[in-house]
Amino acid sequence: MAKVILGASMSLDGYVSGPEESGFDKLFQWYENGDVTIETRHPTLTFKLTETSAAHFRSMLDNTGALLVGRRLFDITDGWGGEHPLGVRTVVLTHKVPDGWEQDGEHFVFVTEGIEAAVAKAREIAGEKLVGVSAGITGGQALDAGLVDEVWIDLVPVVLGAGVPFFASLAGAPVSLEGPISTEQGNAVTHLKYRVVR
Amino acid sequence: MAKVILGASMSLDGYVSGPEESGFDKLFQWYENGDVTIETRHPTLTFKLTETSAAHFRSMLDNTGALLVGRRLFDITDGWGGEHPLGVRTVVLTHKVPDGWEQDGEHFVFVTEGIEAAVAKAREIAGEKLVGVSAGITGGQALDAGLVDEVWIDLVPVVLGAGVPFFASLAGAPVSLEGPISTEQGNAVTHLKYRVVR
Repeated sequence: MAKVILGASMSLDGYVSGPEESGFDKLFQWYENGDVTIETRHPTLTFKLTETSAAHFRSMLDNTGALLVGRRLFDITDGWGGEHPLGVRTVVLTHKVPDGWEQDGEHFVFVTEGIEAAVAKAREIAGEKLVGVSAGITGGQALDAGLVDEVWIDLVPVVLGAGVPFFASLAGAPVSLEGPISTEQGNAVTHLKYRVVR
Repeated sequence: MAKVILGASMSLDGYVSGPEESGFDKLFQWYENGDVTIETRHPTLTFKLTETSAAHFRSMLDNTGALLVGRRLFDITDGWGGEHPLGVRTVVLTHKVPDGWEQDGEHFVFVTEGIEAAVAKAREIAGEKLVGVSAGITGGQALDAGLVDEVWIDLVPVVLGAGVPFFASLAGAPVSLEGPISTEQGNAVTHLKYRVVR
């Protein structure tokens, strides 16, 4: 069955977004501080990664069969203009299907029955591949529900002071993880992978 | 002049202590998950580190000439029974010298004139060696005041959910750091060093 990965770029103080959606220039700096070009589905969005980060990124991309995000991220990005930039079919956990969108579309699937149903749908789409869950409230819910297998953190050397925590709304803290099972040092980013203890 | 290092063991969500002084069993697990024995000044406190963590720890210890901690940590540990376990002279930032303690003692020096005076005193004691400032409120004050040269994080795979942040009471966020300038993977701990951008 598809492994479920909780992942994101994270500040040293544990945030995936600063106050009022700030900090992305810092958090995503490693997407543009190298020499290896990686195209996305969006013509205006091209990454320039170091060799190390590019290998990490490509391996993630090649192995990911579905994404799961919260409605907030979908709204902030305005549905990424119609398709997630990674070109991976994306489940959106929401209370209500947004106006103008098909519930079970080619690029987005909207699930309204809670985190367990959303993860189940994403697993079904992913098949044998990975499910990537975005950190924050949706990720915290998935971790709390025991639905996450691994946590992948791209640790970035900035202190944001406040914002949306990577591990948001976690009822079950403290949570111990195993590892890191992998540590890769890029340029101004440390790629860390942990296994969730069950 | 002595370099000032802000350092501590930190959870993945950025805490150096869980709620109500909890979480130390997790945060300090790497002090006892290896084969290399390191004695401290306290007969009952002996570390068992991995080779990697022992090298990191010894290098830190050999190069540290003074420590700077807040009054809270001094009180929680009850003055470590009279001497810091690392055997390094320790400056305590406080509003008032605690009863029964000499202001300028052999093992502890109490500074009541604020963070700049406390760092200056620690630098004077350290000479050419490093000053180690404990993370939390004191460390946040030092960072805010532009007095920190490097940030050393021992990143531990636990999510504490709440508690005392490594970067506490930081008025000047966001703060960007350079690096990591060093990444060493131990057993259930990642030793990361960053340079503060001025």
